[in-house]
Amino acid sequence: MDKIKIGIVGYGNLGQGVEVGLKNHPDMELVGIFSRRDPKTLNTQTPAYLLQDILNFKDKIDVLILCGGSKTDIPKQGPSLIEHFNTVDAYDIHAEIPKYYNKMNLLAKENQKVAVISTGWDPGLFSMNRLMQEAILPDGKSYTFWGRGVSQGHSDAVRRVKGVKEAAQYTVPDEMMINKILAGEAVDYNQKDAHNREVYVVLEKDANPTEVEDEIKEMPNYFAGYQTGVSFISEEEFKAEHQKMPHGGRVIRQGKTSDDAVSIIDFSLSLESNPEFTAAVNIAYARAAYKLSQTKEYGAKTVLDIPPYYLSSKTREELMRDLL
Amino acid sequence: MDKIKIGIVGYGNLGQGVEVGLKNHPDMELVGIFSRRDPKTLNTQTPAYLLQDILNFKDKIDVLILCGGSKTDIPKQGPSLIEHFNTVDAYDIHAEIPKYYNKMNLLAKENQKVAVISTGWDPGLFSMNRLMQEAILPDGKSYTFWGRGVSQGHSDAVRRVKGVKEAAQYTVPDEMMINKILAGEAVDYNQKDAHNREVYVVLEKDANPTEVEDEIKEMPNYFAGYQTGVSFISEEEFKAEHQKMPHGGRVIRQGKTSDDAVSIIDFSLSLESNPEFTAAVNIAYARAAYKLSQTKEYGAKTVLDIPPYYLSSKTREELMRDLL
Repeated sequence: MDKIKIGIVGYGNLGQGVEVGLKNHPDMELVGIFSRRDPKTLNTQTPAYLLQDILNFKDKIDVLILCGGSKTDIPKQGPSLIEHFNTVDAYDIHAEIPKYYNKMNLLAKENQKVAVISTGWDPGLFSMNRLMQEAILPDGKSYTFWGRGVSQGHSDAVRRVKGVKEAAQYTVPDEMMINKILAGEAVDYNQKDAHNREVYVVLEKDANPTEVEDEIKEMPNYFAGYQTGVSFISEEEFKAEHQKMPHGGRVIRQGKTSDDAVSIIDFSLSLESNPEFTAAVNIAYARAAYKLSQTKEYGAKTVLDIPPYYLSSKTREELMRDLL
Repeated sequence: MDKIKIGIVGYGNLGQGVEVGLKNHPDMELVGIFSRRDPKTLNTQTPAYLLQDILNFKDKIDVLILCGGSKTDIPKQGPSLIEHFNTVDAYDIHAEIPKYYNKMNLLAKENQKVAVISTGWDPGLFSMNRLMQEAILPDGKSYTFWGRGVSQGHSDAVRRVKGVKEAAQYTVPDEMMINKILAGEAVDYNQKDAHNREVYVVLEKDANPTEVEDEIKEMPNYFAGYQTGVSFISEEEFKAEHQKMPHGGRVIRQGKTSDDAVSIIDFSLSLESNPEFTAAVNIAYARAAYKLSQTKEYGAKTVLDIPPYYLSSKTREELMRDLL
């Protein structure tokens, strides 16, 4: 059988995660990495090319996995690349997803291509689980917890504070609240009370720790209103302990099936590498994009639209026999 | 909007679960219950009819939910009813599913109907989660645990032992093993070591407890090779404590995203009423069956084949806005 030919656009953490993850998928083949940077500067064994030359690969790639940022890269690259390639992305600006979907859907249909958008785990697997949990237990309540894990957005925000040299921010869910929900008890959930924030900071020379700590804790949107702990550590400790990117979380539904009986559905993730897991989800949906293009189901799709068996390398018959 | 018109075939625990569960779904309407028993003897407010009269409802029902047993009812009722109705069932004899699928698929296509087969949680939600976990983390290992919950099959087997008046069997998963897996540790899993069995027995007068206990513990297929505890209790205690049907379980995947990083995906259920939850899943898939018939996607489908958004009463636009 022909392998599914994959291209990676963007070689940050996510792109590197796709590169390493593809080694686990014998039905797929990595054709190349496309970057705005000089390909010679990329630290990889994979053939690497300038993004501007990607149209030379129009007939050599089945699916492009877009690994750039959601803020500026994907909104530009998605619409321009979908004219020539099937694409998968992890576009994650929740409020903008419907607009991005409509744009990609129109272009994908016009060009007979498939765009699987907003994969990953949130949006992505968490979205799918929220949908299924609500549909099965309509008389109930859903809870999302994130962490324990590093939030890049919050770490970046801390790094912008004057006097901060390096920083890592961990989002920490309230385990007591989780255990109550799993035990079927009523809880008073709101996102702020359900999560604490742990910040590890390496200070610049001459920085004032009290001022730095106050500025972090009072930062609107990011920290104000949250229980936040700030720890000052050495650069050595930071390098040894806080350069990994673990994350995770869970989506829980408590719902009544009748007046007398509660059901609890819990979907949880614990990830030593957030970008590698996001990449792993992207890869499975790249297989789905390929299958959808084979069956001419063109247009934009989300994780809510795709039959599960499209994600698998096994045939429907094998799946029915082995998994049902 | 017209409501989706549902019929229930079979009024045991599952049928009663569908009846009570439908009250949570304002987009659906229960037209009637169909039973082989005299409708007057059924303890229900819902209109009830003899199963043999069901063809009078050919144009009055959108989807039938088949709530009979998998051993003898469904294999007969499915193929005969799919000629006239869209159907949903929870057929759960794993080894026979492919054969049943092929039969239903052929008949459903011939008659322009949709048959959603083998819904529920195992097979069903567990199957779907196994598929997604494997597709996303191919370099890994899957674990299924059942319980703590009542196994009807095992309880029935114990009731057949001479001297047993009443019995309930609980399947109990090894929580220590589960915690190790969730912590990313290697474990030596096999189904027998991963589960214990707790049996509560009410003895007949003059029964010999030692003989009963030995016969239970040595019963091949059901108990031999398992850690089994047998407790003798009074009929009063049995009625007060052991007439509910709780169950649950989990499907866990430990998988490497690279040599250095493990991811864990855990899907777990905790159910105060097993039949009511199975019914709740059936109801969501009845909505999917209706939508599939509206879009003329005829044939047999499993949970692996159906796009998640078909389960929801919300529009794709609402789902994208609220859940992605």
